[in-house]
Amino acid sequence: MDNVQRPSLKIDLSSDVPVVQQIVGGLRQALLAGALQPGDGLPSSRSLARDLGVHFNTVAQAYRVLESEGWLSLKRRSGTVVRERKAPELETLEREHLAERFAGELRDLCARYVALGLPTRSLGEVLSHLANSEGTSS
Amino acid sequence: MDNVQRPSLKIDLSSDVPVVQQIVGGLRQALLAGALQPGDGLPSSRSLARDLGVHFNTVAQAYRVLESEGWLSLKRRSGTVVRERKAPELETLEREHLAERFAGELRDLCARYVALGLPTRSLGEVLSHLANSEGTSS
Repeated sequence: MDNVQRPSLKIDLSSDVPVVQQIVGGLRQALLAGALQPGDGLPSSRSLARDLGVHFNTVAQAYRVLESEGWLSLKRRSGTVVRERKAPELETLEREHLAERFAGELRDLCARYVALGLPTRSLGEVLSHLANSEGTSS
Repeated sequence: MDNVQRPSLKIDLSSDVPVVQQIVGGLRQALLAGALQPGDGLPSSRSLARDLGVHFNTVAQAYRVLESEGWLSLKRRSGTVVRERKAPELETLEREHLAERFAGELRDLCARYVALGLPTRSLGEVLSHLANSEGTSS
């Protein structure tokens, strides 16, 4: 394939977040930000695993998660390719339910970091920063 | 024990978040908010599990996570009791590292919900709301 993109991913082995989830998360952010475009190819699991210093099964598993979410097409012959994917259109009620679930997970995440010793001021700063950048992006 | 508190927890069986983590998250929020105070007792795993409609092992596992984090004392005789726990005092560098990890997990959480169809505007609203409430609490 011609247009194979080598995504730049940071893996933190000291993190509590499983490596598969870190890879999925990093790729999902690149896909949403448009750094990876429909039609772009991704390196083989073995190749990306070598770059990241992880087992190739870990990358293969991450690719399968993103395939199941509709982001990637995994074919033996053509390799891993980014698919055209639209965010699901939700009804108002579904959207409200999703916002509630998001708020719940967010509160949970915050509580976890406050318990680890992150001052609520720093936490508030990170939240505001992201709120401002998200609020303007659509 | 006299002062056994029955925490009010909402369990969402349709959520992707494992039930153990939902219980841990809900209790951690109650502990941080002071709704559960040092010296307070918690119901036995069996009793809380009955309230929530989950297996008692699920609650027992959640209690063990919170014990390992220093929130709870689990004794055969005296039952499950909330411990006095101070947030760890961190050096500046550790705090910055923690803030970075928090920002990473937060971006990941946001990307996950945007991919599910949550409009970035709703996402920004939830973030600002929490940023404002966190910013004023310390």
